[in-house]
Amino acid sequence: MTLMNVQCRLAARPVGLPKASDWDIAEEPAPAPEEGQFCVQVEYLSVDPAMRSWMNAGRSYVPPVEIGEVMRAGGIGRVIDTRHPGFAVGETVYGGFGVQRYAVSDGTGVTPVDTTLAPAPVHLGVLGIGGLTAYFGLLDIGRPQPGQTVVVSGAAGSVGSVAGQIARIQGCRVVGIAGGADKCRWLVEDLGFDAAIDYKGSDVRQQLREHAPKGIDVFFDNVGGEILNAALGRLARGARVVICGAVSQYNAETRPTGPGNYMNLLVARASMTGFVVFDYEDRYGEGVSQLAAWLRSGELQSHEDIVHGDIEQFPDVLLGLFEGANTGKLILALEPEG
Amino acid sequence: MTLMNVQCRLAARPVGLPKASDWDIAEEPAPAPEEGQFCVQVEYLSVDPAMRSWMNAGRSYVPPVEIGEVMRAGGIGRVIDTRHPGFAVGETVYGGFGVQRYAVSDGTGVTPVDTTLAPAPVHLGVLGIGGLTAYFGLLDIGRPQPGQTVVVSGAAGSVGSVAGQIARIQGCRVVGIAGGADKCRWLVEDLGFDAAIDYKGSDVRQQLREHAPKGIDVFFDNVGGEILNAALGRLARGARVVICGAVSQYNAETRPTGPGNYMNLLVARASMTGFVVFDYEDRYGEGVSQLAAWLRSGELQSHEDIVHGDIEQFPDVLLGLFEGANTGKLILALEPEG
Repeated sequence: MTLMNVQCRLAARPVGLPKASDWDIAEEPAPAPEEGQFCVQVEYLSVDPAMRSWMNAGRSYVPPVEIGEVMRAGGIGRVIDTRHPGFAVGETVYGGFGVQRYAVSDGTGVTPVDTTLAPAPVHLGVLGIGGLTAYFGLLDIGRPQPGQTVVVSGAAGSVGSVAGQIARIQGCRVVGIAGGADKCRWLVEDLGFDAAIDYKGSDVRQQLREHAPKGIDVFFDNVGGEILNAALGRLARGARVVICGAVSQYNAETRPTGPGNYMNLLVARASMTGFVVFDYEDRYGEGVSQLAAWLRSGELQSHEDIVHGDIEQFPDVLLGLFEGANTGKLILALEPEG
Repeated sequence: MTLMNVQCRLAARPVGLPKASDWDIAEEPAPAPEEGQFCVQVEYLSVDPAMRSWMNAGRSYVPPVEIGEVMRAGGIGRVIDTRHPGFAVGETVYGGFGVQRYAVSDGTGVTPVDTTLAPAPVHLGVLGIGGLTAYFGLLDIGRPQPGQTVVVSGAAGSVGSVAGQIARIQGCRVVGIAGGADKCRWLVEDLGFDAAIDYKGSDVRQQLREHAPKGIDVFFDNVGGEILNAALGRLARGARVVICGAVSQYNAETRPTGPGNYMNLLVARASMTGFVVFDYEDRYGEGVSQLAAWLRSGELQSHEDIVHGDIEQFPDVLLGLFEGANTGKLILALEPEG
């Protein structure tokens, strides 16, 4: 039986928000695994803001996706065919399988998923790259101390929601910035944030004055733009600004203006530091086991926003991310073929 | 004999470059020292870019100079009258005496100047706050390693010229950015920089590609604006950006736009950190003795740009600083009264 693969390929480099014509949905027979390879049926695809930056040409922390290539994506699936001694049929695995229904792999970067620890989607969220990004970014770069004020932007997203909860577990006062009253309520009532600022419905600068009266000790930024600038205006002495992402800028068609308040780094004797989670690969084990322990104890909550659909829907699901449609980790769950 | 004091007071908060009407030159009898005080005849005044920021209202790393107050300035002078047991007539001392001919002090923040170590003006330059700023900013925040590429902006200024030389002493490749061919020649031929970029006469971005082919490991920034942005575009992995000043922005009448390339901090896993030399007060002794040792060995050169004049000339001398008129440490030497 030949399996028909469906792939979402990059057709053109987008200007601003990706359009339908920037994608090419292609069907072709899935290749059979050769010796040393195996085939995975992809079940869950991770949908991430960083994907937008991978679509641009030029130097970044990973090479760009080339025109004609399958869009890069982390995913979880089951091994359905194997000629690789390390991967057995039926195993659930995580890897950079790309936006396609079937992926053939030689095992590079593929890791087993322990579904007895948590359901598969959690391994794309709290126990996946998002959770690890929050864990290492907050603890290693942000270095929050108990009693300090930690502010997280993009707080209802996959990384921000975990970063804020870890800050709470560390004994910090945690303020989240998110878009919309529902998300803000969720942060405070369900995730235990001390306060949440709705950037769509209020003046962030004034709200930061109210909710961080002694200044911000750690700002964990997923958003950039005006929100980063507002936070720079309220740094406490010795503050750490963690640059995790800049989702407000990824679709910008003009060159971003940059944070005009950066000289507050001098006034506050503060630092602004960028990081990439891949540099912590040697410590993923430590991170996953700590995050899993917090999940088990109930201190940390996992929230996945799962959209059920086909490969064809990926472009729209990605757009939803930039409209702020999701709460928690956005995942595209691929329906089994009918 | 009653001494007539001349003071340069702040008359108005400047918009853009300070105008004559922003100053008030006042003459009044110098007060006699009371018990526990002494009177200093000011001989040398330090003229610094940061002065412009002290003239603005609002929060910074030091309180603003208030309207009607004598303009804040570091200076060196001789004790000419004393009722303080710790300060004898004839002693040469450094302190925040302000832009005036005579200052009365209770000794707070006043330190003796060892003119056997170096002439008095050197104690406002390499052995003064400027030298210490370069020393702690470069070594503590920049942490350059031998063989790394260090780029210094405002490299012909009082802080930059010392920071670059210290980087050379540490075994780094040093590239200075300065305005004009003469300054650039001075950096390379006299101070031993490996290269110099004339920002007035060339494309800084392209020149950085040429002179920092493997990227910038440490960027010591005195300038801000487009030069900071260009440097952020060329960071090496793990780079440290030291925010020492932003002279290009101090007279800006509109809100500065900020460095649009800041997301390269993430791509390069780099940090951008502000500092204020006053935080290192406990270690000034260490800094001065190391800087003096380098001066003695000839590894470090001191260069003072001394303008001889009266208090009345201070406003023009300060403007010269923002026009880039000086090479090395700008000092106003007050002529003895005729």
